[in-house]
Amino acid sequence: MPTLILVRHGQSQWNLENRFTGWWDVDLTEKGVEEAIAAGKLLADKGVFPTVSFTSVQTRAIKTLNLALEAADRLWIPTTKDWRLNERHYGGLTGLNKQETRDKHGDEQVHIWRRSFDVPPPPMEPGSEYDLTQDPRYAGIDIPNTESLKLTIERVLPYWESAILPVLTSGETVIISAHGNSLRALVKHLSNISDDEITGLEIPTGQPIIYEFDADMKPGERRYLKDM
Amino acid sequence: MPTLILVRHGQSQWNLENRFTGWWDVDLTEKGVEEAIAAGKLLADKGVFPTVSFTSVQTRAIKTLNLALEAADRLWIPTTKDWRLNERHYGGLTGLNKQETRDKHGDEQVHIWRRSFDVPPPPMEPGSEYDLTQDPRYAGIDIPNTESLKLTIERVLPYWESAILPVLTSGETVIISAHGNSLRALVKHLSNISDDEITGLEIPTGQPIIYEFDADMKPGERRYLKDM
Repeated sequence: MPTLILVRHGQSQWNLENRFTGWWDVDLTEKGVEEAIAAGKLLADKGVFPTVSFTSVQTRAIKTLNLALEAADRLWIPTTKDWRLNERHYGGLTGLNKQETRDKHGDEQVHIWRRSFDVPPPPMEPGSEYDLTQDPRYAGIDIPNTESLKLTIERVLPYWESAILPVLTSGETVIISAHGNSLRALVKHLSNISDDEITGLEIPTGQPIIYEFDADMKPGERRYLKDM
Repeated sequence: MPTLILVRHGQSQWNLENRFTGWWDVDLTEKGVEEAIAAGKLLADKGVFPTVSFTSVQTRAIKTLNLALEAADRLWIPTTKDWRLNERHYGGLTGLNKQETRDKHGDEQVHIWRRSFDVPPPPMEPGSEYDLTQDPRYAGIDIPNTESLKLTIERVLPYWESAILPVLTSGETVIISAHGNSLRALVKHLSNISDDEITGLEIPTGQPIIYEFDADMKPGERRYLKDM
């Protein structure tokens, strides 16, 4: 039975500092490392062993994957890293503290940027210290300067369809280590969640989510591995 | 200019205990972790940035790669893991302490097993505690029960030719994190070293070796990155 495991990366330095992160490459905290290892141990304890893995090109998701795979004694499985699994790009909000942003732009505006389905934050200014256009990991990629959740979904789902679903269909147990919003994109699609509802759905860090697929590749219920 | 970086994994627990390891999956020691990080920092310091990576399916080589890539801020580059880059399989010697083996079989016999080009050690007994035939990472693979250096080369070189060389030829900077004998196989081929000489050539742990290729894909001299 094809099985999909979704894991949101553990706590990062900017999660801790309550700053908008998006595509900026921030490392895991000590707590984030522990969350990743605990996720891997849970996979092993429950006997859910991934056979193929996917992650973004962001350090916090790659390290979460590597730490979890090592804890599950599966560090040797194939890994594909792709920018289309990256976090939503927070545009001009990148690097800002969330409270300071509310003080500056007002609670309501920040709520819209964070929770609207299709309103992107203001674009990143060219020359911003968080500008990634010169980062070699994005060479040849037309990187966005801001993204709504809708825009995020529009790059996550084609990758899901073209790269991940075929592997799953071949019978593998696939693990995806990614981010709050790239995982929302997948959960919205697989659990058929409305535009309005998905923006409020929280994906907890380091908690493996499981989908089992039937013979027609119809996903079953979304479940937390800890409850299985 | 296509560039190849070879790195032998840092110290493992069984290197420290002076035991024959081969395909048995042993972790890095604290010192091995430090060697891997130092290798990555050296890559960054020298401005030699890998763009594509290959490693074996053994934890000590994968972790060396991941730690080095992270230290060079290149954790996001593509990684391929393949058993054909594994260490030489030490057969029935796997797990034995090297001194005890000399006491038991005599210095001369052990010297032949370690340094002969084409005499493999005795095969691993079926049911040995180090038998890997049930290990899921080798599912579908006809795993050897012992290997000489010659046999090791016979599985490393076809993989080099089919999987790694084409990537290098396309202009990438390729890093291979592997093992004493799988790297000897490559160095023998690239530096045109005789059968007799190669068995005595020591590849130091955690020391990046560099080959630069010309337009005809002829490798230049073998150099240590630290000396460049």
